[in-house]
Amino acid sequence: MGKQKGSNAERELVQMLWGSGFAAVRVAGSGVSKYPSPDIVASNGSRILAIECKTTLKDHQYFHPEQISQLIGFAEQFKATPILAVKFTNKGWFFFSPEDLEKTPSHNLVIKRKDASKGKFLLDLKNEI
Amino acid sequence: MGKQKGSNAERELVQMLWGSGFAAVRVAGSGVSKYPSPDIVASNGSRILAIECKTTLKDHQYFHPEQISQLIGFAEQFKATPILAVKFTNKGWFFFSPEDLEKTPSHNLVIKRKDASKGKFLLDLKNEI
Repeated sequence: MGKQKGSNAERELVQMLWGSGFAAVRVAGSGVSKYPSPDIVASNGSRILAIECKTTLKDHQYFHPEQISQLIGFAEQFKATPILAVKFTNKGWFFFSPEDLEKTPSHNLVIKRKDASKGKFLLDLKNEI
Repeated sequence: MGKQKGSNAERELVQMLWGSGFAAVRVAGSGVSKYPSPDIVASNGSRILAIECKTTLKDHQYFHPEQISQLIGFAEQFKATPILAVKFTNKGWFFFSPEDLEKTPSHNLVIKRKDASKGKFLLDLKNEI
């Protein structure tokens, strides 16, 4: 997705998180920093989230394996839950766990909108925000 | 301080935090976002930090009361410890609690380098990073 469109989606999600009792920040230089970093970090004290954000016109979203391993590494160090947040245009926000990703034949990773309600935690999160 | 100098100091502190077992990120648009946000958020699981960063040539550093109340508000929501991190040029980094701030006659807030070792928590932090 374009950089501007991506930033707008991040700002929208930050706003949703604040509206649900989380303190949330966008991360500066995520993806270009020398350290692994997610797009958004949020916490309400009982739940700490490291969020990678995407927006797409399709009903699935690809991720690079390297991006996912960086998200998981960051989350382990920060003691946060890694979350993939995808805004499917006209369908809204859906939340996934890295465990929901499936390998494609070309060794990319993909999540499908229809799989968004797999994890109990993510259902809880969806209800919260 | 200048914006570039401030960003460099923030990057230096992020690097120090990673080197001490914290996952740390710089916050995008801190100070201009519609939500209160610190300059850096860091966590090692047992300790979560919301950090406001400054660098100065003097032996004291002023803060605006509004900036401090925003830091404290963010930290409460995120369940983080609010930290004032000041790099005194040629003296290195010193860490303060908002409680270390003193009111000036003109209603600003100030911390002095000589008061950096007041709080036990902050001594611990200094030993860690």
